[in-house]
Amino acid sequence: MDFILSNARLVSMRPGDAGYQVTEPQNITIQHGKITAIEATKPVAKACASFDCTGKLVTPGLIDCHTHLVFAGSRANEFEMRLKGVPYQEIAKQGGGILSTVKATRDASLQQLIDMALPRLDGLIRSGVTSVEIKSGYGLTLDDELKMLRAAKALESHRAVRVTTTLLAAHALPPEYSQRSDDYIEHVCQTIIPAVAEEQLASAVDVFCESIGFSLAQTEKVFQAAKQYGLKIKGHTEQLSNLGGSALTASYDGLSVDHIEYLDTQGVQALAKSNTVATLLPGAFYFLRETQLPPIEELRAHNVPMALATDLNPGTSPFADLTMMMNMACTLFRLTPEEALRGVTCHGAKALGHGDSRGQIAPGFDADLAIWNVAHPAELSYQQGFPQLHARVVEGAFYPV
Amino acid sequence: MDFILSNARLVSMRPGDAGYQVTEPQNITIQHGKITAIEATKPVAKACASFDCTGKLVTPGLIDCHTHLVFAGSRANEFEMRLKGVPYQEIAKQGGGILSTVKATRDASLQQLIDMALPRLDGLIRSGVTSVEIKSGYGLTLDDELKMLRAAKALESHRAVRVTTTLLAAHALPPEYSQRSDDYIEHVCQTIIPAVAEEQLASAVDVFCESIGFSLAQTEKVFQAAKQYGLKIKGHTEQLSNLGGSALTASYDGLSVDHIEYLDTQGVQALAKSNTVATLLPGAFYFLRETQLPPIEELRAHNVPMALATDLNPGTSPFADLTMMMNMACTLFRLTPEEALRGVTCHGAKALGHGDSRGQIAPGFDADLAIWNVAHPAELSYQQGFPQLHARVVEGAFYPV
Ligand SMILES: [Zn+2]
Ligand SMILES: [Zn+2]
Repeated sequence: MDFILSNARLVSMRPGDAGYQVTEPQNITIQHGKITAIEATKPVAKACASFDCTGKLVTPGLIDCHTHLVFAGSRANEFEMRLKGVPYQEIAKQGGGILSTVKATRDASLQQLIDMALPRLDGLIRSGVTSVEIKSGYGLTLDDELKMLRAAKALESHRAVRVTTTLLAAHALPPEYSQRSDDYIEHVCQTIIPAVAEEQLASAVDVFCESIGFSLAQTEKVFQAAKQYGLKIKGHTEQLSNLGGSALTASYDGLSVDHIEYLDTQGVQALAKSNTVATLLPGAFYFLRETQLPPIEELRAHNVPMALATDLNPGTSPFADLTMMMNMACTLFRLTPEEALRGVTCHGAKALGHGDSRGQIAPGFDADLAIWNVAHPAELSYQQGFPQLHARVVEGAFYPV
Repeated sequence: MDFILSNARLVSMRPGDAGYQVTEPQNITIQHGKITAIEATKPVAKACASFDCTGKLVTPGLIDCHTHLVFAGSRANEFEMRLKGVPYQEIAKQGGGILSTVKATRDASLQQLIDMALPRLDGLIRSGVTSVEIKSGYGLTLDDELKMLRAAKALESHRAVRVTTTLLAAHALPPEYSQRSDDYIEHVCQTIIPAVAEEQLASAVDVFCESIGFSLAQTEKVFQAAKQYGLKIKGHTEQLSNLGGSALTASYDGLSVDHIEYLDTQGVQALAKSNTVATLLPGAFYFLRETQLPPIEELRAHNVPMALATDLNPGTSPFADLTMMMNMACTLFRLTPEEALRGVTCHGAKALGHGDSRGQIAPGFDADLAIWNVAHPAELSYQQGFPQLHARVVEGAFYPV
């Protein structure tokens, strides 16, 4: 059955457009989960549902293209200990850090992982999200990585949201491989990636390429295995230092390089020559009190598309709110509100390999929309904490807040 | 009728307590809007309503002791222009800045001010707020200041929340008094303060004591008039420079000094000898990308109670989310999560002159509570964007989210 959004002032987020180009009220026709027409005059009445968007603003449904929202345990205690001045070594001795999340995630059942993820997902949904990427990376064994990916995929049957999964087995070195990171990478390439590909549990593979993560050579091995098994590529790169992971990711035709505070001019140029998106994660920047800013001016000058995501995770970005990240991108990184909105729509879609079907309001695109109680799109980046979302449309179906 | 919250693990926030002292499950009896008993065993069954708090955590209802949430107009456009690199002078020429809010607020009717304030109040309520302070300060004429205060008070009849109003006529110099700030202060002291006192529209008077606001001498004149009319005193002090406004406020037995990034040792010592609360506003610090930190260590060393508030306003803190401010206080100011929670409970109450009746869970105190879906109080400061609030109790009545 058709569904019509009438009188919709909309921001299409077509990549070529300059400015928001907020339209006069339009009528959006939706059929079989796709946008089929956008017309100034209302289509001849058919037997179909409709929603009157008068006084509202319609944007593409927001896309959170980088999260780690499936995990067990809480790191609130560690957060508190740090603020009480407990030294890092002491926190680590008490089992803090990423390995505490790994332990709790390994100990959790599939159902427990789903139950714990749902409130986090609800937070994102409340901020207008219709598509979310979820990474594994707290299991670090074949079974536990598969369990995490299954939990992530299962969320789609609990909430009206599209989930894209990414294998991040190369997130941290599991304790049982201590001092043997090459062996672990071999395990990832020869066992975990093939199994995930076989079961079609992820569409992409990601690596934490960093001095405290995996080396450039190890990263490349994982990328090669991913390519061999037909999986797309993403990178956690240049977050804490400049190893050249972004250029490597671009050379493998990666979907995105994420964090990139320490990306240098060479790295920006590598991105400019590729199809790879630069994904900014201001929540982690804020939470870690990082001072090194990503090279926004250079990315802008080279027309590198910038995506924006929550990085929702227990260690460095415990934030289930994508519009707050838009504010942080503006406030901390000096993105314009328009760049922030592109970051969570058309550019976020591109960072997931869905740039041709999501993140824009156009005929042929998926009917994933956010309907807001705001007059101007800049308000989405500017004011926070207000109940701004009125409803979402996901695959053509209407979901009030 | 009695109301019983059973099996409540609670954080009482008694000022003397060290640490949270999260209790074993208790039963809280509420009568006539007050807490009358807290007992380990359930009181003998009476004909009364009850709510089972098993699996939840109960804190005092949160108190946002500094907001400007009644105003008209949006400053999203100005936010966007700044990020696009439009020079400040150009923005001012186009009518930006606080005077744009003054103009819109003067042009708005009482009902319009109420309607526009409600979504902002809903944001605060969603973050667990049961008491909110609201300042005037965008009217800057007798009639418009009265209109703002009436709108603020009227909010109590639209939502389950307690509103405390503060007259901030000395917020900015109205354009019709350009170059005549002494004349305006005289108008505030001789006309506006007496009228507000007469109509009992505010319980306190506040002044923006700053190089770009009002001088120390002008501030003292306002304080004297406030005292004369039996109104309490608050100060916006030491936000951008150190004028000594905090010490002056303390010398007038002020309820609180707010912002205080530039407070010096002398100022801290003046607070230490007084009953005045130091109110931290990390939202404005973040939004303005301020780098001068308030003297947290010194305040802590001198046992000055620190409150924490949103400063919700269109120019420098467009954030209707008090738990996000707890996170910012921890992340940016290095408060501990316990200090942050005290800041929005017992210390927030003290900053409003309600320290003896609100902000704590104890017999005799107002039955204003927040019931959370968290296991540990540190989670309230740590993770953001999650739907953590389960319900509020305001004046003994139960309000689910
Ligand atoms: Zn990440
Ligand atoms: Zn203020």
